[in-house]
Amino acid sequence: MAHRIHNFNAGPAALPLPVLERIQAEFLDFKGSGMSVTEISHRSPWFDEVIDEAVSRTRSLLGLGDGYEVLFVQGGASLQFCMIPMNFAEEGKPVDYVDTGTWSTKAIQEARIQGREVRVLASSEDRGFSYIPWEFEEDGRGSYLHITSNNTIKGTQWPRFPEGNGVPLFCDMSSDIMSRPLDPGPFGMIYAGAQKNIGPAGSALVIVRKDMLERVPEGIPTMLKYRTFSEKNSMFNTPACFVIYTVSLVLRWLEEEIGGLEKMAALNGEKADLLYGAIDGSGFYTGTAEKESRSLMNVTFRLPSEELEGRFVKEATAEGLGGLKGHRSVGGCRASIYNATGLEAVKALVGFMAEFERKNG
Amino acid sequence: MAHRIHNFNAGPAALPLPVLERIQAEFLDFKGSGMSVTEISHRSPWFDEVIDEAVSRTRSLLGLGDGYEVLFVQGGASLQFCMIPMNFAEEGKPVDYVDTGTWSTKAIQEARIQGREVRVLASSEDRGFSYIPWEFEEDGRGSYLHITSNNTIKGTQWPRFPEGNGVPLFCDMSSDIMSRPLDPGPFGMIYAGAQKNIGPAGSALVIVRKDMLERVPEGIPTMLKYRTFSEKNSMFNTPACFVIYTVSLVLRWLEEEIGGLEKMAALNGEKADLLYGAIDGSGFYTGTAEKESRSLMNVTFRLPSEELEGRFVKEATAEGLGGLKGHRSVGGCRASIYNATGLEAVKALVGFMAEFERKNG
Repeated sequence: MAHRIHNFNAGPAALPLPVLERIQAEFLDFKGSGMSVTEISHRSPWFDEVIDEAVSRTRSLLGLGDGYEVLFVQGGASLQFCMIPMNFAEEGKPVDYVDTGTWSTKAIQEARIQGREVRVLASSEDRGFSYIPWEFEEDGRGSYLHITSNNTIKGTQWPRFPEGNGVPLFCDMSSDIMSRPLDPGPFGMIYAGAQKNIGPAGSALVIVRKDMLERVPEGIPTMLKYRTFSEKNSMFNTPACFVIYTVSLVLRWLEEEIGGLEKMAALNGEKADLLYGAIDGSGFYTGTAEKESRSLMNVTFRLPSEELEGRFVKEATAEGLGGLKGHRSVGGCRASIYNATGLEAVKALVGFMAEFERKNG
Repeated sequence: MAHRIHNFNAGPAALPLPVLERIQAEFLDFKGSGMSVTEISHRSPWFDEVIDEAVSRTRSLLGLGDGYEVLFVQGGASLQFCMIPMNFAEEGKPVDYVDTGTWSTKAIQEARIQGREVRVLASSEDRGFSYIPWEFEEDGRGSYLHITSNNTIKGTQWPRFPEGNGVPLFCDMSSDIMSRPLDPGPFGMIYAGAQKNIGPAGSALVIVRKDMLERVPEGIPTMLKYRTFSEKNSMFNTPACFVIYTVSLVLRWLEEEIGGLEKMAALNGEKADLLYGAIDGSGFYTGTAEKESRSLMNVTFRLPSEELEGRFVKEATAEGLGGLKGHRSVGGCRASIYNATGLEAVKALVGFMAEFERKNG
């Protein structure tokens, strides 16, 4: 048995152990090809099956109809930040954003660099991005309305999505895609860096409504055009094959082992309830996000002092509970409990927290 | 023992078996972390070691001084095609290219899309890109002079590099980087998709001379600026961790097992000599590239008929010799014999070729 810890990393993050074991088992000989999955051609029937499975499972899990394209684009969510206004901003119309912290702010910045008319319709900066700003109105003029569904650093999440007043929603779901069921209807585009909930780092999953692709202007560089990817099944050039392969296995696990997104959401809710319950019941730990905006994926909390926080992380690490340090920009502690971090890991963490409080509280 | 074939794929391509075995062995627990290498944070000391090794071995193998940055950028060589003119074209100066076929042509096209003044100083299109066009002069006015060192589809390779007349050489070395020693002096930039000679698909290795970075204009999107990568050690956002990890192991193998680029080049020469010798000595097989421009990496050849070519590929595959079909755009046969495809594989191929000729010649 390999030595394995409970992994609370924010991303790259835990992957399901059965998926890792499968990759390991077939790493020298993929499906009898006599080659590693890293050595097969992306133009081979072997890889066609891999990418087709990743796409079709994305479709079935999220209930995407034929009106959506499912693409794999390198460069993470950060490259999409600049590709989105380049591809989807309409002439004479503003691009609309809600600012819920670091990742939203970066997406906004990239639209501004391109000289777009950016409207920030709402922001939670006034209270340190500790909540989701519901109170805003989309007047219907926007090319799109961009939000970040889950904010890894501040530990907030949209519990439901805003009304776009007919404007297509564009959503960075890097840190909560496939964590709960979704009605794709209002979305013109959904994208997610793979490295949190669905795979290793090195590709973004991009879901785009076909009518959006009609907006893509001629004259932008080939590799920055979403139509290049939709026209070539994400293989205009060699894609991030190993990432796509792992995504296909993670989504298979999600459908066949977990049983789909309803069940995944129930399990994620149970994990978050347990952890937030431990925080709220303690008087020693303090959650940093406002309660109605709390993330079910990234649970951020403080201890009475930075010194105690440092000791908490260190001792937890020694107990096999890894990745609990808060983001370097905000400090504190953070437990990321994505799909692949199981209930038993959260139980172990809650047990450790109680013990740490008993000794230091 | 895993079932393994002789892999002549053009890319993604063969990786050294000891590297694959190492990845497999440590896949569930990377260096005692209790996590897979795909699950560790890119901001962890574990990953710092990985990327530092990939960079420092690139430096030592290629003899790069402090004047060069070594970066990892997603999107393959194809994304670099558009980033290069965006970052390095100088105001009022043309950008110069030599056209040696598909990949050069695509690089040229991306510069044109951006409205640059493109000068194609030489092209081998007149004879179907079957040779390297030596006869041209760089007048010294170019922002850069771009070449493709090895042409996977047509099987040609620059045996030595052209004079730039003071203009920095920019080179797409996707398919022959690390196959032979290099004098980096004349190069302003060298780049290579990883998936042929140094790793799996999903990242380009980019080597850029520091003075080139001073050309990078403000006001271009953050993820399309090479300075973003040089300022953040390729980690402005999450990089393609698994690719970089594999590259670090491949370069370790190249330095420690093979013994460096002189030895690699000698071995590659021996492999190519054996294979071209078999072709030239046969009267049945015909090489498609002109002799003085032949690639040591991709050996392209024809048989007397397409029907025989189809049978050749099929029977070779059945004998455990994979990936011998020519590129879909040109047909014929192609044996890619990158660093990780060993002499024993080439010997097996040559043996099969003789037997096939005996039965069908």
